[in-house]
Amino acid sequence: MEKIKRTKIIDVLKREDYGTTVNVKGWVRTKRGSKAVNFIALNDGSTIKNVQIVADVTKFDEEMLKQITTGACLSVNGELVQSIGSGQAVEIQAKEIEVLGLCGNDYPMQKKGQSFEFMRQHAHMRLRTNTFGAIMRIRHNMAMAIHTFFHERGFFYFHTPIITASDCEGAGEMFQVTTMNLYDLKKDENGSIIYDDDFFGKMTSLTVSGQLEGELGATALGQIYTFGPTFRAENSNTPRHLAEFWMIEPEIAFMDQTELMDLEEEFIKYCVRWALEHCQDDLEFLNKMIDKGLIDRLKSVVDTEFVRLTYTEGIKILEEAIASGKKKFEFPISWGGDLASEHERYLVEEHFKKPVIMTDYPREIKAFYMKTNEDGKTMQGTDVLFPQIGEIIGGSVREEDYDKLMHEIEVRNIPMKDMWWYLDTRKFGSCPHAGFGLGFERLILFVTGMQNIRDVIPFPRTPKTAEF
Amino acid sequence: MEKIKRTKIIDVLKREDYGTTVNVKGWVRTKRGSKAVNFIALNDGSTIKNVQIVADVTKFDEEMLKQITTGACLSVNGELVQSIGSGQAVEIQAKEIEVLGLCGNDYPMQKKGQSFEFMRQHAHMRLRTNTFGAIMRIRHNMAMAIHTFFHERGFFYFHTPIITASDCEGAGEMFQVTTMNLYDLKKDENGSIIYDDDFFGKMTSLTVSGQLEGELGATALGQIYTFGPTFRAENSNTPRHLAEFWMIEPEIAFMDQTELMDLEEEFIKYCVRWALEHCQDDLEFLNKMIDKGLIDRLKSVVDTEFVRLTYTEGIKILEEAIASGKKKFEFPISWGGDLASEHERYLVEEHFKKPVIMTDYPREIKAFYMKTNEDGKTMQGTDVLFPQIGEIIGGSVREEDYDKLMHEIEVRNIPMKDMWWYLDTRKFGSCPHAGFGLGFERLILFVTGMQNIRDVIPFPRTPKTAEF
Repeated sequence: MEKIKRTKIIDVLKREDYGTTVNVKGWVRTKRGSKAVNFIALNDGSTIKNVQIVADVTKFDEEMLKQITTGACLSVNGELVQSIGSGQAVEIQAKEIEVLGLCGNDYPMQKKGQSFEFMRQHAHMRLRTNTFGAIMRIRHNMAMAIHTFFHERGFFYFHTPIITASDCEGAGEMFQVTTMNLYDLKKDENGSIIYDDDFFGKMTSLTVSGQLEGELGATALGQIYTFGPTFRAENSNTPRHLAEFWMIEPEIAFMDQTELMDLEEEFIKYCVRWALEHCQDDLEFLNKMIDKGLIDRLKSVVDTEFVRLTYTEGIKILEEAIASGKKKFEFPISWGGDLASEHERYLVEEHFKKPVIMTDYPREIKAFYMKTNEDGKTMQGTDVLFPQIGEIIGGSVREEDYDKLMHEIEVRNIPMKDMWWYLDTRKFGSCPHAGFGLGFERLILFVTGMQNIRDVIPFPRTPKTAEF
Repeated sequence: MEKIKRTKIIDVLKREDYGTTVNVKGWVRTKRGSKAVNFIALNDGSTIKNVQIVADVTKFDEEMLKQITTGACLSVNGELVQSIGSGQAVEIQAKEIEVLGLCGNDYPMQKKGQSFEFMRQHAHMRLRTNTFGAIMRIRHNMAMAIHTFFHERGFFYFHTPIITASDCEGAGEMFQVTTMNLYDLKKDENGSIIYDDDFFGKMTSLTVSGQLEGELGATALGQIYTFGPTFRAENSNTPRHLAEFWMIEPEIAFMDQTELMDLEEEFIKYCVRWALEHCQDDLEFLNKMIDKGLIDRLKSVVDTEFVRLTYTEGIKILEEAIASGKKKFEFPISWGGDLASEHERYLVEEHFKKPVIMTDYPREIKAFYMKTNEDGKTMQGTDVLFPQIGEIIGGSVREEDYDKLMHEIEVRNIPMKDMWWYLDTRKFGSCPHAGFGLGFERLILFVTGMQNIRDVIPFPRTPKTAEF
């Protein structure tokens, strides 16, 4: 076979120099045809679109043509010709075909219309399907949007540690990390495990959030963001939970609550706009196959000014809806309690029909590090609530006053052992600052229209599942 | 104090609209002065440069001025004026000063010239020093360079799992991840621990490499790269080892050995060029304070064509150097053995005085997944060796033939339990592919001129150390 430099399919489909001989490589999506001609849809992952290969049956070895089955890997030299029937502007009239990799009948992605559950069990091969190819290209683009957004604004990407000796946020159950021989654990006279011989000489876990270390970065470098894996060992078998997921946590010195809301809104609109501009083909596919309202919903977020609403105002709206008989909720609602998903969705999807930034939550339902308002009752939280998704961003101004922070820690009985370094930020040149956290997979759910969080990460980690 | 929108110091220093009143916020680096005037060097992390604040002592409260100590956090309103003595083009004639955060005498970063070891013990505060500010801004820029490089070339960022149930690469000791109660481990009749009740229902560990899952991505999406944390539980207390570090692992379908070398060389030159173009101030500081040869070395890498050398040729050069008495090595050398650091550095720093891409290593010293050459003796590895650093990139073409791959696995007695998914890539539409791995901190060492890998990551994880 003549050696010709490969062209990616995304590039071949843009070309108009008909008559040129090109080389493409990829995997067979479908093969159909008559006795005279075979039509092979070839995909190489660079785009959701296939290039159509036209093979004149008389010109090729019959045995070789039989090897061209769904999933097989081909290298094709052929002439670029204008296409009429393929759905694309060009197709390739094959001159030479080499089968690089055979694909047998037991190829799990052979049949169309398999369930998502089946796909999860074959997550290593689902990446070769249209749906998961689209999701993964969008996922890449959202990561790139995030890095670009922060880079353009002078933020520094800051790697907070994954293995940590502190659990102070109390965000959830943690995974223990150890190198101890579990068959030979050392214990003291009281029966307590001695961690001296563990790798770090103490008990360590996987991080649940990089925020506290992120604050160290922000109070030195001014503006930082994290983008890394975080872990929750919660035994939750739901379409919304992963044991291992990626978080983005910007933290900004000298930022107040209004500026924080501005940043949150600008940030998420930037990401969604990036998707609309960079992922058109993939979004059109998902809009057609997965969620007919997807593109409209994305556009509406970009075009809409978010509602800014205090928790107290939110409660009032919900209470009025109940009192007027307009709405019934499963869970009760009263000032001081957490909003349930149904309450958030009512505000966003029915009452305002817009994303809502909810602020100034009761102290009791928020974390110790948030700045308390002058009323002494509420804290300067700023959560972004989205249609379909609910809370997509959780943010707040941080308490910069040492004494007030210590008070919150004591009231909550938070163990501050090993947390001296965090308190030092309030002791040495303390500064007002604020930040937020975004669960990356939540964003991908919103942007792809998918329903299950296990379908927007390549290899999900959930209870009893650590395959691949 | 009048509320004026804050300007970042990096932006203030570029302005020429003298006479304007601006607000800056930041931390005091130094204060000096006479009875009449105080000069305060203020830094906000946006740049290594300070802005000089000039305070006419008669205009401010004496007690407030006393609070302005090294490390204190200030908000300053003042007039932008042309500067003569500050080393910058502008300075700020203070009108109003507010001390946002006091800083006591026990501030650990108060004294200049502290040792790097002292800095490590105060890693939460070292970020506020010139050296570590510079390193962290460069670190951010290298991450941004990497994402931009791959994005521009149509690669997709691919998140491989952190928690894994397989250890097949055998790259090193692993950390175990568990939610089992270590005080109440269940065992079977033979005394073996039963993992049924562990979170994932089996023994799991932290990943040592995302390559194998990366190959799943590449054989579906065409070209992917990982950029995530990886872990080695090796008890190595050296300036070159971290227990937790970040790796970049691109993987590319249809790529051959020459194309792989081209990509490696283009990639690393792109990163170094980015540093030279985007991190000038920080590099100049490091060149002056840390390593006088730094900028010259970076420029030479960008301008030089890398040497491409087979392992066999490399051995010959080393043997000739020994035979001619030109060079003595501590460790012996012969075909088939691993090169020691001194051998690599001789080739790079003394013989060629250029980066070297070394190829085609003996099978015995390389991993099972590499493609074997037709000679049956060597494998298509492509490692990049750098001055000072040694191996900065480890790459190879992967074995795409199922039978040959299985042969390597069997010869090496690699446990392939739980690895069916990896073998499936060679069973279903197998394709030629290649990839490489870059240790992110190795790159940062090279670009900053720092000597100890613990100083180029915010919070290093090493034996007995998981602070912050």
